[in-house]
Amino acid sequence: MISRQQLIDQIKQKRSFLCVGLDTDIEKIPSFLKAYPDPIFEFNKRIIDATQDLCVAYKPNSAFYEAYGVKGLQSLIATWEYLPKDCLSIIDAKRGDIGNTSDKYAKAFFDEASSGMGFDAITVTPYMGNDSVTPYLAYDNKWIIILALTSSVGSKDFQYLTTENGFLYETVIQKANTWAGADRIMYVVGATKSTEFTNIRKFAPDNFLLVPGVGAQGGSLEDVCKYGMNKDCGLLVNASRSIIYASNGEDFADAARAEALKMQQQMEVELEKAGVI
Amino acid sequence: MISRQQLIDQIKQKRSFLCVGLDTDIEKIPSFLKAYPDPIFEFNKRIIDATQDLCVAYKPNSAFYEAYGVKGLQSLIATWEYLPKDCLSIIDAKRGDIGNTSDKYAKAFFDEASSGMGFDAITVTPYMGNDSVTPYLAYDNKWIIILALTSSVGSKDFQYLTTENGFLYETVIQKANTWAGADRIMYVVGATKSTEFTNIRKFAPDNFLLVPGVGAQGGSLEDVCKYGMNKDCGLLVNASRSIIYASNGEDFADAARAEALKMQQQMEVELEKAGVI
Repeated sequence: MISRQQLIDQIKQKRSFLCVGLDTDIEKIPSFLKAYPDPIFEFNKRIIDATQDLCVAYKPNSAFYEAYGVKGLQSLIATWEYLPKDCLSIIDAKRGDIGNTSDKYAKAFFDEASSGMGFDAITVTPYMGNDSVTPYLAYDNKWIIILALTSSVGSKDFQYLTTENGFLYETVIQKANTWAGADRIMYVVGATKSTEFTNIRKFAPDNFLLVPGVGAQGGSLEDVCKYGMNKDCGLLVNASRSIIYASNGEDFADAARAEALKMQQQMEVELEKAGVI
Repeated sequence: MISRQQLIDQIKQKRSFLCVGLDTDIEKIPSFLKAYPDPIFEFNKRIIDATQDLCVAYKPNSAFYEAYGVKGLQSLIATWEYLPKDCLSIIDAKRGDIGNTSDKYAKAFFDEASSGMGFDAITVTPYMGNDSVTPYLAYDNKWIIILALTSSVGSKDFQYLTTENGFLYETVIQKANTWAGADRIMYVVGATKSTEFTNIRKFAPDNFLLVPGVGAQGGSLEDVCKYGMNKDCGLLVNASRSIIYASNGEDFADAARAEALKMQQQMEVELEKAGVI
């Protein structure tokens, strides 16, 4: 379990706020790995070994493991077990259901004794409201990361609807702020909307924001930091494909490290610029 | 795979629009089942044997299986394999993510060769918009069931927000109607909101509505039918706890059958009243 302060300390120490997304796709990993009994885990293990001093969080995307049934779940569990305990472990699962069902999802991802996995944080979808997210908060020191403004095309369909309290995504943040504080809730905010960060910081000055969309999806790290960074950093910038698939050859782990290092160096500049380090 | 017409035919033949929810909880099933190698599957098998002539759909709730890791997933796969192929098989998973991730969730629940499961339908959450649901539609003849108005307390938080096109849940239905027709999309509408069905039928006259909340959550079947039934029936009413936990003893399957029969008989009356049969 990683508290808010521990996360901040680690960001300062590693001079990085990088989250490496483990969207590991059997069709995209180097083919020589297929000789191993669990190619997906073998890939993740080498990515983790190559990047763990450069990042502060890892985020396996549950869908990529669920797609392969029992074998996929075994790879996910093995990956969770292998994650360095000083890094925040985020399961990107985007769950959301009524209370008695969210209890079970919390068990699935937070209760190691039950499921074999004990992630530090889970991404959740807000549509079903309060009782769909509060069961996760019953686990001390675990985090929920609520979808606010996502980076895909479909975000326009509903997240930008005007409600009585502003855009829907603003209302989500305002309402979720009443459920728990910045020590338990983060928000997902897509990097492709960097000018929106100023606005989001009005409602969520202290919360960490998990930011996908830098890299493969085209968002700019500099813009994200300019508009979104707060005095504690307050950002976890995720990169998945641009790091883990930097090379498709035997050198994939080295290539991933080189990409992660490039991002860490840019992050160090931004942290210094903002006076966080 | 069950087409809209096959579903309607089956409703007329069985004189029922009951969906049995398999929210199977190891802590609630009769204790004698724990002697079996897979108690959750054993429970489901007996519930299915006892109810399949009375219902037209089964809906395992993914969270209840995920909570137990690999063992839970094995129970879910075994349950899917055992489901009668004339009944609509719905996985209640409430997934929602960007396109390349929804592709993987579709694989997880629709592509038997990949995951071991090939459900007919999946529940999805709309927050991330169009690209989060369309990957499922790439599978011919499979259904998506989009959350519109849910039956829990938290539904008030966002679903009733007023947007430029009415309540958020109304906007969700209007927008989703542009993605596919009533042969591919159903909506989740909670039974506790029965007077809202009149309103929902304005936007979704032909779509099937999956209705939780009758039974344990207090919704009235008569009201749901009065306001929500269309000429093809257009309803799948789900009951989970009230059926599967009707008894905690060795007679649990008989007790489940008795509860399902009671609902089927009420449904028959409603189908006749509305002239569907």
